[in-house]
Amino acid sequence: MEHFLSMKNISEHEILRLIKEADAIKENGVSPIHKQLFAGNLFFEPSTRTKMSFTIAQRKLGIDPLDFAGETSSLQKGESIYDTAKTFEAIGASMLVIRHNQENIANQIAAHVSIPVINAGDGKGEHPTQCLLDLLTIYQEFNKFTGLKIAIAGDIKHSRVARSNALALQTLGAEVYLTSPPDWQDNQLDYPYITIDEAVETCDIVMLLRIQHERHEGGVAYGKQHYLSAYGLTKAREQRMKRHAIILHPAPVNRGVEIADELVECSRSRIFKQMENGVYARMAVMKRLLTDRGIIDENHFNQREAVSSR
Amino acid sequence: MEHFLSMKNISEHEILRLIKEADAIKENGVSPIHKQLFAGNLFFEPSTRTKMSFTIAQRKLGIDPLDFAGETSSLQKGESIYDTAKTFEAIGASMLVIRHNQENIANQIAAHVSIPVINAGDGKGEHPTQCLLDLLTIYQEFNKFTGLKIAIAGDIKHSRVARSNALALQTLGAEVYLTSPPDWQDNQLDYPYITIDEAVETCDIVMLLRIQHERHEGGVAYGKQHYLSAYGLTKAREQRMKRHAIILHPAPVNRGVEIADELVECSRSRIFKQMENGVYARMAVMKRLLTDRGIIDENHFNQREAVSSR
Amino acid sequence: MEHFLSMKNISEHEILRLIKEADAIKENGVSPIHKQLFAGNLFFEPSTRTKMSFTIAQRKLGIDPLDFAGETSSLQKGESIYDTAKTFEAIGASMLVIRHNQENIANQIAAHVSIPVINAGDGKGEHPTQCLLDLLTIYQEFNKFTGLKIAIAGDIKHSRVARSNALALQTLGAEVYLTSPPDWQDNQLDYPYITIDEAVETCDIVMLLRIQHERHEGGVAYGKQHYLSAYGLTKAREQRMKRHAIILHPAPVNRGVEIADELVECSRSRIFKQMENGVYARMAVMKRLLTDRGIIDENHFNQREAVSSR
Repeated sequence: MEHFLSMKNISEHEILRLIKEADAIKENGVSPIHKQLFAGNLFFEPSTRTKMSFTIAQRKLGIDPLDFAGETSSLQKGESIYDTAKTFEAIGASMLVIRHNQENIANQIAAHVSIPVINAGDGKGEHPTQCLLDLLTIYQEFNKFTGLKIAIAGDIKHSRVARSNALALQTLGAEVYLTSPPDWQDNQLDYPYITIDEAVETCDIVMLLRIQHERHEGGVAYGKQHYLSAYGLTKAREQRMKRHAIILHPAPVNRGVEIADELVECSRSRIFKQMENGVYARMAVMKRLLTDRGIIDENHFNQREAVSSR
Repeated sequence: MEHFLSMKNISEHEILRLIKEADAIKENGVSPIHKQLFAGNLFFEPSTRTKMSFTIAQRKLGIDPLDFAGETSSLQKGESIYDTAKTFEAIGASMLVIRHNQENIANQIAAHVSIPVINAGDGKGEHPTQCLLDLLTIYQEFNKFTGLKIAIAGDIKHSRVARSNALALQTLGAEVYLTSPPDWQDNQLDYPYITIDEAVETCDIVMLLRIQHERHEGGVAYGKQHYLSAYGLTKAREQRMKRHAIILHPAPVNRGVEIADELVECSRSRIFKQMENGVYARMAVMKRLLTDRGIIDENHFNQREAVSSR
Repeated sequence: MEHFLSMKNISEHEILRLIKEADAIKENGVSPIHKQLFAGNLFFEPSTRTKMSFTIAQRKLGIDPLDFAGETSSLQKGESIYDTAKTFEAIGASMLVIRHNQENIANQIAAHVSIPVINAGDGKGEHPTQCLLDLLTIYQEFNKFTGLKIAIAGDIKHSRVARSNALALQTLGAEVYLTSPPDWQDNQLDYPYITIDEAVETCDIVMLLRIQHERHEGGVAYGKQHYLSAYGLTKAREQRMKRHAIILHPAPVNRGVEIADELVECSRSRIFKQMENGVYARMAVMKRLLTDRGIIDENHFNQREAVSSR
């Protein structure tokens, strides 16, 4: 891999390799790189989870994170995103992690720098490391994808997760269904729409999406109570889920809207496990990029795996 | 210790143990932990001193700080403090340090996570590591607490330091007096009120409090000049202090208000020494929590103490 | 050196020593300091490049950066800059790096702390590490300064780079010319003014300045297009430059204003090389300050140079 920008052009083989790598890192740890490397974390949008997850993943690999926050930087002096990225490359970053509210920004930057770029969320576009951690969580649970039924539920239209996940899951052999209020359906996605009630009764995985208020421009608003009872995961619906079915949500959760407050930490919920998995998924992606690019030697990791205790 | 949330339920024995530990760390250093640990520093209120102090203390122990700033994070997306804390736990933090303007937040979070929580200031509530560094500074000066006379002076009502300190000092055998403008007295504290003039003439320690403008809701305001001459530590008052008496202030100082500008760095002032001690006090607290919780082995430190040169 | 505040009082010998040191670090690397040191990076003004450059330079030397951002700190509680600096000293910083929009702030602080202070830009004052990296870039290109013709072009009046650079270059034996719109000339600088057209035809180095909109108080404004064609580096002008002549710019660049967009990364441009050099220049300055002050042993670096592979 040259960059990690989208789930669109990644083969089934490559996806499975990354998932297994992440799972192996979770089981056995990985010893830090014995070479000083810097990662430029360019977050032009607010983010706790993703930024912290990348930071920890980098430190566990022995990479020094360089934090850039849009608000307090030279962007106030009109510096372009492109120049910011080139600056980080010039001063020594071996990798860029980019989050921005515009689609395709990471792709555009990747085309102009000589270091690997990771898309950490681009507006309504994609969020491929989130997708990878979702897949890892499903894999850990079911040890397969073929034949699994999954419902992606909620604000499909404004979600950057829905697209990536639907595509990747289909590639891996799962049956994908969508469930959404009528105004938030996305006609460009070619998967069958079902109701939330059908979803809970038939699916192995109910993947709830976060309502992306910040990406709604006017348009329809739903009352919280109404949304939960009409389209969300209530306690009553959770009771009707299949015995081994699990709940996913990319977080942050709007408690009492997409999902009943009490269900966030219920026994079916893998929401906090997803967060934990995010660190391993990102470690796997960065390790792959650094080795595929020849920035570090693949053997480096293998040789040391035995002594690692983390 | 499970958490470090308040000075209220800590025994005299435990307080002295922490003070002596901090003092030993100051003298002999401590070698960093040989295990990768992360601390989530959740500061929802502005802070230079406390945040930097925790950061340095963590790095000296070999812990990686994870900085969270309320303003630029997912809180903008309405994420609850509780979910932020759970997120840091899920992604791998071994400890949380929490500052917030609401009382009891740290306690509430501590009840729901499985990692140690440190209260780094909760509104008008407590600020126990500040208390501990004050005690450490007094202990280094007088080598005892019994029989010491101490005046806590200023904005008692809005101070989270006054309460913790008064209680802890009494527990340790000191005589505590309060001095304050009438409107800023706190009737819930059962210590004798004296004037600032009585305080400077009779006490071994004059502990000035910062005026907490940000916590005043309307209420009385005093002119700066007036406050200093009526209730603050002027040069004339300093001259009347006992020969070995010292001045403490938690900082940041309102120069020329609580204390005359020239006195901030006078020979009686321990204000910058308090800051230095803050690092050692916090190292002692974190070391204790990590060992008491079994996250690291107590022997780890002892074995290495000999080779440490920091 | 005690501090690094200005290019004014540094001898030719000292400047060349720093340049050669920086160049040697670039070639051979330097092994990190085996002692835990902290640097307080006090940035009261926005900055990406300079702050990140110092951060990387510190980490490459093995120094832990402590980031302070004016906006989210106790300055909101009215803490003075001086007290902030003293706080960082008290809690354990071995060095301060200060950027502020007021002139001479770093000098004032340097007079009151016992640790080395680096001026990272003080309003319209100086920015000596920027100057040093410019000199390093010129030295790498021409291997000398004597006899070189250099034009400093643009917003002379509001630039903190123009002054430092003109002085240092003259000290080193170069011929300095200025070119600027009439309203942005600085009569206190005693160098001949030429036109941009004369500059491109006669000079070995065309050093463009950034238009400092944030430091203009009312006064003249130029349309972007007009500025570029009348005073900036257009493609047509670039074609008339001498064969070996190079282009410098401290960045961030106003593309299409000081310089045509396409020229920013042309073969004559050393703009991104300047950024890279900034890291080495700052490493050289910090290494010098720490050894001259006896904070670390000069031999430390020499002994280890052989084993360094960074």
